[in-house]
Amino acid sequence: MAEKYRRYDHYQPPTSPFHQKMHTFIADYGPTPPPHDQVAKMARYIVHNADWGAISTHSSSPAIRGFPFANIVSISDGTSTNSSGVPYMYITPLELSTRDLEIDPRCSLALSLAETDYCKQQNIDPEDPRCARVILTGKVKRVKTHTSEIDYAENALFSRHPAMRSWPRSHGFYFAKLKIEQILVLDYYGGPKIVPKPEYFNPGDVRFRI
Amino acid sequence: MAEKYRRYDHYQPPTSPFHQKMHTFIADYGPTPPPHDQVAKMARYIVHNADWGAISTHSSSPAIRGFPFANIVSISDGTSTNSSGVPYMYITPLELSTRDLEIDPRCSLALSLAETDYCKQQNIDPEDPRCARVILTGKVKRVKTHTSEIDYAENALFSRHPAMRSWPRSHGFYFAKLKIEQILVLDYYGGPKIVPKPEYFNPGDVRFRI
Repeated sequence: MAEKYRRYDHYQPPTSPFHQKMHTFIADYGPTPPPHDQVAKMARYIVHNADWGAISTHSSSPAIRGFPFANIVSISDGTSTNSSGVPYMYITPLELSTRDLEIDPRCSLALSLAETDYCKQQNIDPEDPRCARVILTGKVKRVKTHTSEIDYAENALFSRHPAMRSWPRSHGFYFAKLKIEQILVLDYYGGPKIVPKPEYFNPGDVRFRI
Repeated sequence: MAEKYRRYDHYQPPTSPFHQKMHTFIADYGPTPPPHDQVAKMARYIVHNADWGAISTHSSSPAIRGFPFANIVSISDGTSTNSSGVPYMYITPLELSTRDLEIDPRCSLALSLAETDYCKQQNIDPEDPRCARVILTGKVKRVKTHTSEIDYAENALFSRHPAMRSWPRSHGFYFAKLKIEQILVLDYYGGPKIVPKPEYFNPGDVRFRI
């Protein structure tokens, strides 16, 4: 299926109903995070710039059944110049967290600027709220095949995680997304803030709608 | 209480019953991870070198009650030259994950080499098993005051997270630890490996027992 892969550098997302519905943006976030009081933009900035996140599931492993389970998953919400706000993943049932999700799709995804050099350069401790993080809670769903969304997910992931193209197909990897129910941002003192979904998916003037 | 703080650079852990029991080691892990087949050493290497981790709890927040919740927490298992294998934390009940833990202390902590520059330098994707990670599952417990363990925890955390010393005491921060029940290492192809606790706390000859 190698011939199927596009030249990701010059990928232009199609103007399909999916993309209109998903509020996909040309990403133009700038090199540093937005001001901390622009929480929807901060959430989108972190989600777009995070290459991976910490995923939390209900463990289905016999020895720790019922415990919350934490793991690492690579994500992408779009190509480097494109941002949907939706974290896409490329996961396999051989993996513990995927097995958990196939039994109970509820999960959270924590994405933090601690992943980048930003907090270290600013001398901000990873636990300090100013080392901004976003915690997305929702349910993981498999992306339907033969849709424009699966093309988007493939481009989003394979452009930013090129190694994924060669991951063994025999392992049953599939494209999935977090269907977001709650968006929580911690980016300053005073406690976390909940970002309403309409604001998250349409966060204002820092980028241009396609 | 400022006069209470020690000069952490030259801190020598006391040879108390606590430290004998805890298998505290002079850390001498070297600059790169150990070979992937030495899984106990790999677990100790990651736990000692991680400044922060992803913590997974059962959410007690009304809007997402019962969902797994992921968050970021700063950790330390000892000063830079000292390693206990026990992740200590400095947490406040003002924080969502701490509130979750006070209701249900079960949690997991995922620590990954993706936090460092290692995987990027080696061109290994964060989700690739060779971007080694350890997932510790257990229960979070408050460290008892007026013990040698709380002195150890304070030194462990404040030496490696110096900003913590100035975090507001009015926020009710306290020292806690993960009482480990399961140690899972993913550091190569072929699936995760469980490290028995005795092996984890006594991982061989890469360092010297005090």
